[in-house]
Amino acid sequence: MSLSSHPPEAGGRRSVRVELGERSYEILIGAGLLQGTGAEMARRLPCARALVVADETVAPLHAPALLASLERAGISAALHQVPAGETTKRFSELERLVDRTIAERLERGDALVALGGGVVGDLTGFAAGVVRRGMHLVQVPTSLLAQVDSSVGGKTGINSPRGKNLIGVFHQPSLVVADTAVLETLSEREFRAGYAEVAKYGLIDRPDFFGWLEANWRAVFAGPGRAEAVAVSCQAKADVVAGDERETGARALLNLGHTFGHALESAAAYDPARLVHGEAVSIGMALAHRFSTRLGLCPASETERAVRHLQAVGLPTAIREIPGPAFLADELMNKIAQDKKVQRGSLTFILTRGIGQAFVARDVEPAAVAGFLAEEITAGPA
Amino acid sequence: MSLSSHPPEAGGRRSVRVELGERSYEILIGAGLLQGTGAEMARRLPCARALVVADETVAPLHAPALLASLERAGISAALHQVPAGETTKRFSELERLVDRTIAERLERGDALVALGGGVVGDLTGFAAGVVRRGMHLVQVPTSLLAQVDSSVGGKTGINSPRGKNLIGVFHQPSLVVADTAVLETLSEREFRAGYAEVAKYGLIDRPDFFGWLEANWRAVFAGPGRAEAVAVSCQAKADVVAGDERETGARALLNLGHTFGHALESAAAYDPARLVHGEAVSIGMALAHRFSTRLGLCPASETERAVRHLQAVGLPTAIREIPGPAFLADELMNKIAQDKKVQRGSLTFILTRGIGQAFVARDVEPAAVAGFLAEEITAGPA
Repeated sequence: MSLSSHPPEAGGRRSVRVELGERSYEILIGAGLLQGTGAEMARRLPCARALVVADETVAPLHAPALLASLERAGISAALHQVPAGETTKRFSELERLVDRTIAERLERGDALVALGGGVVGDLTGFAAGVVRRGMHLVQVPTSLLAQVDSSVGGKTGINSPRGKNLIGVFHQPSLVVADTAVLETLSEREFRAGYAEVAKYGLIDRPDFFGWLEANWRAVFAGPGRAEAVAVSCQAKADVVAGDERETGARALLNLGHTFGHALESAAAYDPARLVHGEAVSIGMALAHRFSTRLGLCPASETERAVRHLQAVGLPTAIREIPGPAFLADELMNKIAQDKKVQRGSLTFILTRGIGQAFVARDVEPAAVAGFLAEEITAGPA
Repeated sequence: MSLSSHPPEAGGRRSVRVELGERSYEILIGAGLLQGTGAEMARRLPCARALVVADETVAPLHAPALLASLERAGISAALHQVPAGETTKRFSELERLVDRTIAERLERGDALVALGGGVVGDLTGFAAGVVRRGMHLVQVPTSLLAQVDSSVGGKTGINSPRGKNLIGVFHQPSLVVADTAVLETLSEREFRAGYAEVAKYGLIDRPDFFGWLEANWRAVFAGPGRAEAVAVSCQAKADVVAGDERETGARALLNLGHTFGHALESAAAYDPARLVHGEAVSIGMALAHRFSTRLGLCPASETERAVRHLQAVGLPTAIREIPGPAFLADELMNKIAQDKKVQRGSLTFILTRGIGQAFVARDVEPAAVAGFLAEEITAGPA
């Protein structure tokens, strides 16, 4: 069964086109594409030079193959290495990358190539958006999360000491190359965390895809179902982004599970020993479903089905599953109120009426959220 | 005589609309508008908070009136002061401003207000473009140069140690308030330097405006002709920008005099004792005309007329007028080759066929430029 609108080409390769007028671009998806990145770039961009950005973990694994591919395609390329981890999304690393880009004499038509997960993609995309007021960006995402989420949509940025992703620009890539074979180098936990975002697209508005995942998730984890899952996820996100490039409306649906999830991540001080992003999103999605059921919006059977699948793949679905000290409802409420998606004090949540029926709920009663969270913390499923 | 397409409203106030689809905005021009900025903002933006950015020179002169105006309009505002001078366009000042903006809890719908010349406008615009991936920007330009140039077009940015304006974004303001009365606080030299950009619009493609300036420049300097000159200049730039928001084609015409000018500024190490931007542009425009005449493109009489007007208002028109050590043609050629507008090694210049007949010349022969510059340095007018 193929759910993606673009069935596999020869070799199982898929492509998804993100329609954004003159900023439209293609996402190539398939096993072994890394080695062909240079040729794909040369076909599309009149690019003479490139700077590949990777962190110290990913660089030794995949940079040599990528640099060789660029060289074969006649693109002069260098490697810029950054420290691994979320703290790389800071001003000093942005300045260092921007300076290196200019020092390498890259022009507007040349490309920064982000080889890595969300951190490298966000930092590199921001640099590409501001050097000479915008140069080419090629994303080569190496985590499942980056392949299905951060490589689509054009959001780039760094963190502020006062909050995550508060500083950045919208800058669309010119090309995304998602090699599903490089996902072999991920740990089981990293892959699973990325899978939370895959399931999210089914839960938002693709009930058929959710059903497909329930039946085929083992093939997604093992390999054969990966390209299909990535392609449908990218297409799902692309459809939303194309209708709302700058996040003024429908794009908010992509935040299903994220308001609760961000609050949990923040309250856990972004300590990956306790919680990584995808796990927080999984718990957040479970909370959004249970809260919707509590408000009488979503049948209990639908919520049970959503939660059951997340549990089946091994994702957490309750606050009490997070290791370490217990959370406080007040603290979580404060984090929610500080979230950048809060507008003029009213709370906006993504709630749902069932599998694939998420919607934007504005003016959610803060007291109802606080009561629900208190209950989840003290008496919720564990 | 009124040349602007929008004749004066009551009180001699003019307005120019910059048409950029959903990013369209208005430039209000007239004496005494500063005091009404808050009311104009409140009418247009659902803005609850604002942060006014000004340098240590401009802040004491104009910030109190602007802050009072915001307060009267019910907009909660604070002042962020930056050091005066070009070196403020650096990463550390960007970071400090971004951090202050977030600390003041400004949301996407709130505004950064740039009160000052090009430096403050460029820095503030960049910050407004990246905090929360874009928030409102209001420009209140206090120099003639900023009123007719940097407040229109959406270019923002900071300098790299390797070159000026190499880092930034396109971010359009939501409103520009050009109070022609605040220009009283400029020195004669500053005003005159800004006037070079006014004359530039006539020389590019508005021969009637150039004729009006020849007849009325004293009124522009004295006050009564100012709003008209600013309005026509803004309209001229707005027309070009509307057709080419991201500088891929016709917008290059705005660089008339700038390729030579930037090389001179850079060779003079941006020392304002030797040369300020507008003076460099004036010399650059004279050079562009003389070079065009030398190439047989522009009648000598037209070049003489252009140069005569620049001289009449007291602007320099020859390299040898720049005080300090002599320039070297080779050094200027190197600077020209490094200019960010160079594409793949070929030289692009804005040349002219006469007053108001500038055009983009690609593939200009470097040897011809070098020979021309050597002659200007050793034997040109002084």
